[in-house]
Order: sequence, then C-alpha cells, then structure tokens
Amino acid sequence: MNDDERYMRLALDEARKALEADEVPIGAVVVAQGRVIGRGHNLTETLHDVTAHAEMQAITAAEEYLGGKYLTDCTLYVTVEPCVMCAGAIGWSQLPRIVFGASDPKRGYQTYAPRAFHPKAKVTGGVLEEECGQLVRDFFRKLKG
Amino acid sequence: MNDDERYMRLALDEARKALEADEVPIGAVVVAQGRVIGRGHNLTETLHDVTAHAEMQAITAAEEYLGGKYLTDCTLYVTVEPCVMCAGAIGWSQLPRIVFGASDPKRGYQTYAPRAFHPKAKVTGGVLEEECGQLVRDFFRKLKG
Repeated sequence: MNDDERYMRLALDEARKALEADEVPIGAVVVAQGRVIGRGHNLTETLHDVTAHAEMQAITAAEEYLGGKYLTDCTLYVTVEPCVMCAGAIGWSQLPRIVFGASDPKRGYQTYAPRAFHPKAKVTGGVLEEECGQLVRDFFRKLKG
Repeated sequence: MNDDERYMRLALDEARKALEADEVPIGAVVVAQGRVIGRGHNLTETLHDVTAHAEMQAITAAEEYLGGKYLTDCTLYVTVEPCVMCAGAIGWSQLPRIVFGASDPKRGYQTYAPRAFHPKAKVTGGVLEEECGQLVRDFFRKLKG
C-alpha cells in the first residue's frame, strides 16, 4: 500500500463516521509532513448546515492546528471529488496537492469550477476509487429503499 | 430607498464590523419575509480560516435559525460578488435570490463558477455598488500604505 492509499484509508475511516451518523459518507484528512493535522466527515444533516462538508471541516481543523490560513505544505485526501464550494476553499487555502477517490460528474468541481484550485496545484484522482464510490452508492441505494 | 438598498445597508454595516477587525470589509445578511435571519462578516484573518467568509457565516446562521439546511424562501445580500466557495454554498442552500453590491472579476463566481447557483436563482448585482466597492478599495489602499 503506497502513501496515497494509506491516507485515503484514513479519509475512508472518516467517511464511515459520516455513515454512522446517517450522512452521505464522505471523509477527508489533511496531511503535513506525514502527519494528519486535520480530519473531517460530512455533517450537513446533523448540523443543518450546507457548509459542513468533510473537506471544509478538515481544512478548518488543519488551519486551526497550524494557526494560519494557508496550507501550502499540505495534501488533502478526500474520498469523493470536491464540489464547487470545497474547491473554492481549497483554492483559498493554497493547498498544493489534492488527492481524491471517486469522481463526481454531477456535482464535482471539474464540471462546475475547473480553475478553482491554485494554478500550480497537483491533483490525483481515482485513489481507492471503487471503495470510495461504493460507500456512497450503497448509502443512496439504501436511502431509496 | 428601496428594499434591496435597505438590506444592502445592513450588509454594509456587517462589512464595517470586518473593517474594525482589520479584515477585508465584506458583509452579508440573509433575509426571510422581511426579517434578517442571518448575518456575517469576513473573519478569515481573525479565525485563521479561509472558510470564514461573510456569506458562509450568514448562511450557517440562517440555517441554524431555521433548523434546516435549505434557504428556499430567503434572499442573500452581500456587499461583494460571491467567490467560488461561497457560490457553491449558495447553490447547496438553494437560495432563490442573490443580491450583491460590487463585482469581483478577479475572484468572483461569474468568472470561475458561473453555474454554481440553483438553476432558477435570480441574481441582482450592482446594488449600492459604489459604496460597497469603495470600502474594499480603501482597505487595500491603506494596507499597501
């Protein structure tokens, strides 16, 4: 298992916490120099708050940890392709690397805001894609009964 | 003074609170049936948090007030055109009307995520544009000394 997969597994652990709270199971971690400095999982229903996406919480936590609003030496791992909102936050934080699992053509930033990240940011998609996507698909299948 | 100008003045009051905290002076209010149910001003420096934009806080406050994550009967007033992140949050909240003051061609959603809002959302720009924009321009001029 390479580093990207290792950290994506931690993001998947976060996604499972969302699932336990009956939330769309998406999770994220922010990593700096091999250390996880921010974690988050989707809590939009629990908090009645559309801004409570996994990435937003992981970014806020990492910035809190660092005491500054830039994450210029960090990597964000998230189980699903970020939405427009989260992509905007990623851009503001100047994250230089973003790793995501499953793509989200319906809501993802690649469709709606392809230039939201820092111009030099490097993006890796498809890490543990099947597992990340299956978690979300199972959730919606169960929801529809 | 029409209703839009009246609520934009309240958003400007919020922007001035940001200014007092040495923040980029942007403010926002969410209005439902003639009542302000959410307010916010930019606090990104104070909180070391890129997600602490005026709109994000006003939306979160309004959702908290309503106890639900949709703002389908509300109008958002914000002194400056929303960025990608805030536009994404506005889209998720299903706000049907957005009124902004000054445009922001460098960072605004119209350039980077023009389809971020709900497809039926109505947008009015340019309300008290000069006053809203001047506040920000003065801030940056002072910052540069």
